[in-house]
Parts: sequence; C-alpha cells; structure tokens
Amino acid sequence: MKKYFLAIAFLVVAVAGLTIGLFIQPAAHDKNDGLWGELAKWKTDYTWVELSWEVNPQTPHWKGFDPLTVTPKYTFEGTFKDFGETENNAFAAFLYTLPGQYGTHTDFPGHFDRKGRLSNSYHIKELAFPLVVIDKSAAVAGNPDYVLSKQDVLDFEAAHGKIPADAFVAFRSDWSKRPLDNFEATDADGNAHYPGWDIEALQFLVQERNIAAIGHETPDTDSANVSNSDAGMIGENYILNQGRLNVELLKNLDQLPATGAIIFVTLPNITDGNGFTSRVFAIRPT
Amino acid sequence: MKKYFLAIAFLVVAVAGLTIGLFIQPAAHDKNDGLWGELAKWKTDYTWVELSWEVNPQTPHWKGFDPLTVTPKYTFEGTFKDFGETENNAFAAFLYTLPGQYGTHTDFPGHFDRKGRLSNSYHIKELAFPLVVIDKSAAVAGNPDYVLSKQDVLDFEAAHGKIPADAFVAFRSDWSKRPLDNFEATDADGNAHYPGWDIEALQFLVQERNIAAIGHETPDTDSANVSNSDAGMIGENYILNQGRLNVELLKNLDQLPATGAIIFVTLPNITDGNGFTSRVFAIRPT
Repeated sequence: MKKYFLAIAFLVVAVAGLTIGLFIQPAAHDKNDGLWGELAKWKTDYTWVELSWEVNPQTPHWKGFDPLTVTPKYTFEGTFKDFGETENNAFAAFLYTLPGQYGTHTDFPGHFDRKGRLSNSYHIKELAFPLVVIDKSAAVAGNPDYVLSKQDVLDFEAAHGKIPADAFVAFRSDWSKRPLDNFEATDADGNAHYPGWDIEALQFLVQERNIAAIGHETPDTDSANVSNSDAGMIGENYILNQGRLNVELLKNLDQLPATGAIIFVTLPNITDGNGFTSRVFAIRPT
Repeated sequence: MKKYFLAIAFLVVAVAGLTIGLFIQPAAHDKNDGLWGELAKWKTDYTWVELSWEVNPQTPHWKGFDPLTVTPKYTFEGTFKDFGETENNAFAAFLYTLPGQYGTHTDFPGHFDRKGRLSNSYHIKELAFPLVVIDKSAAVAGNPDYVLSKQDVLDFEAAHGKIPADAFVAFRSDWSKRPLDNFEATDADGNAHYPGWDIEALQFLVQERNIAAIGHETPDTDSANVSNSDAGMIGENYILNQGRLNVELLKNLDQLPATGAIIFVTLPNITDGNGFTSRVFAIRPT
C-alpha cells in the first residue's frame, strides 16, 4: 500500500513539475495580445537587416535597362496656388518610370518561362522564408569570375547542416560593396567579370533540397563569363523554369548568419508582373 | 535518513519534471533555429491577410493622377532573336510608369510637409505595427459622407480597450467593396461622396494616444465633402505634418479583428520619395 502511495506521490510531483514547466512561457503566447507581444519581442530581441538598395537613378541595375526617372507631378508651390491657396492643400508628388527588374528586385518564373507564374499569383505568405547564406566572399575577392559550385553547397552543409526545403538560399559575394561606377568590373575589352551560380549547384538545390528561392548581390544569376558564353543565361533560365524565385542585387548579406535568420521579400502586387523592385529584409538573432 | 532520502528523491523528480516541461517546447524556442521555428508557427497558427489592391491600369487611385502604364521592354521573341537564339536567353521584361501615390500606397510626412521625413529615412522596423481596426462600415453604408469622429474613437476604446502608442489605426468603411467604375460616388453635380477622418479624431489619436500611422480604404484622409470645402485637406495635412504615416486605398479590412493583429507596410525604398505603391498585409490570430 505504502509502495503504491509513494509511486502515486512521485507521479503527482512529476506531473506538477511538468505542468509548471509548460506554463512558464513568455507573455507572447497569451491568447489575447499574442501577436502584439510577439512583434514587440521581434523588435527588441532580434536584429532587422535591410537587404535592399535605395531606389534612385544611380541604383545598380542590369545594363540592358535605363535608369529610373523621377519627375515632379505636383509641387508645393503649384498645388498651393491651384487648389485654393490654403496650406492644407499644398503637397508634392512624383511620377516614376522604371523597369520591373530595377535595383534590388524579385524575378518571378514568368520572367524566363513563357508559362511561368507571375507576381500576383503569390500570396504574401509565400514570400517569407527561412534564410541560408553561403559565404564565398573570400573566393570572389580572389577571383571575380568565381562560380559557386555544388561542392560549395556540400561543404556548406557539412559545416552548417542540411539546407531545409522551402529555404531562400543567398550567395554572399560582397559584390554589393564594389564601387558603383564599375559595378560589373568591365575589363579593357569590354567584358564584365562578376560571379554567379554554377548550374549544377542550382540543380542540386532544386532537385535534392527543394528550395524556394535564391538570391545574390550581382545583376544576374550566372557569372558574366557564363552568360556571355554560348551557354547564355543557363542558370537564370533553369531556376525560373523550375518555378523558383530569383532575387537580384541584394546587399548587406555580410550582416547575416549562415543559418537561423528569416527573410521577407516584399514588393507591390503587380498584375501579371514578372518582376519588380523589392524591399527585402531579414530578421536574425541578435 | 530514509526521510531525507525521500525528500531528495521528490526534489529530483520535481526538478526533472520541471526541466522536461521547459524543454517540451516547439523548436521555435531553440536557440539555434528559433526564428525558423517562429516563422513556421506564424504561417500555420495565424492568418496572413492581403490588404493591398493589385496594381494595374484599373487600380483605384486619386483622380489627379493618370493610371499606371505598362510597356513591354523585352519580349521572349525579341530576346531569343537578339541574344543568340538560345532559349536560355529568351525572357520578357516590362517598363512601368506610375505616380508614387498609386493604388494602395503609403504617404510619408514629406508628401504634405515641406520639411517632413521621406521614405528612405524609415528603417524597415518602423514599418511594422500593432493594428487597431475601427469598424464604421454600417454608418458609412447609411451615409457615404460619414466622418469618423473623436466620439467614435472613444466608443471603440470603451469596447476594446485603450489604443496603444505606436499603433496603426485603420478606419474600416468597406469602401473598397464599391464598384470601381464610380469609386468616388460622384453625384450628378460632379461632387464626390466618400467618408473620411474628422480632424478632432486625428488630433486625439496623435496627441492623446501617440499613434504611428492611420489607414483607410478611400483615396483621401478627409471626406470628399471636407476636402472640397474651404477647409481643404485638413486631416491629411495634419497627420503628415505631425510626422505620422498615412496609408490609403487599403482593402480587406473586414477580415481583421478590432485588436490583436499586426500590420506590415512594405514598399520599394525610394530615395527622397514622399510615397509609393505598397504591399500592405496583416497577420492575425486564426
């Protein structure tokens, strides 16, 4: 009898301990102000990292596009005069002309795939991802034509663990730190030299890891050497034809950990757009 | 001796239970993959609500702006022919022209305040807010000229609690459900009739509650009746001169709770911009 009593007592104490343990949770999990609390925690406990270029006529962009143009549409002086000479009606507004693929931008599959998905088919929930950053900045510093290989991906996994499905995989090259007056590192013969993804690395990431998106600091998925060869834009054509997203001209990748951060890819919801200038940001452990 | 043994045994079991309890946590709380787990939880446990209009030439916009224009810059046929007749180089891209304040958009203080802050001065962290939704859709259904008053704010607080500092306060009017062919409800005399915020309500929200931003479904802060009067755009001028954000032409506010959701206001990071088309979304408890 005493034996049973002791067993039950032990059990009660264990369950009590377990229960107390489960209920010692941050207020963030309270039913009512859960999300307000979680946002506040995200702002104080984590670091938010801007990954986008500012958008102006000097912003890096692929050479096949003209720079952004900004035209005053309404000026304070004009609206004050025209709308009743009250300060309440004095305002300024601008008109912008830009290609979809300007500055930091997202390419949707339809950019390279005639039947590919377009921007407005993406729910906002599909544009937030676990983020993996493969740092090949040292290799690129030594060789601007560097191509991130399948072996680089395998080496990354050996050090940091398996890349999860639906991840956003970023190639850190530190290319965004280059001077803007020769961003493509064009040589005396007029040939650009910037790094890119090897097609086998992309095939591995898509077929073996089922990632959702890639991102890089350069204006193209492929290295300049490869895209100017007979192969052409083989990597960009592949990744978009596989229905993945391609985010270009990122910056500040050096402020991110190899794993553990998350990334938000945000942009105006253009009807039937195949790409648009984006605000991309990461949230990482401090 | 046996007594001590029992006491220690109880203690060990209790501590073990407590420890197990603390560790039976979603992966979200693990130091390493914390944010990956939290994002996964946000996607499964919460509902993500799109609050933006799709962007195309039909998107609602203030009558003083022309519609968006979309021009093909590169076509699959043209690039295939011009870039080496390889499918790898065949792509499409568009050129867009639009006013900053097109469709769902954010107005920064500099839109109405000559010395006001401009878009690139905002860190991404400043564009995520606790969200409060004041539902006056029934009143607006009965009177399109309805003005949301200070008393409406006080009544809201009596029902739902005090509006927190730094909140985004949205005026739900269900105006976004109107037919687009007469979105401003223009009458036979050519006068528009849509609802707006009363200046006293805005003064209360700024001075007594220190909110960060307001949002609404109409093209203006003020009702059409007020902005067409001698007062002019008194509400918009006030809120922006107070350094708060003004987000216009929202939709789907009927899918949000009065309190407890959070809102992300996202847009390209335009240098010295006073407003731009935005992707605005909320995350709410399911």
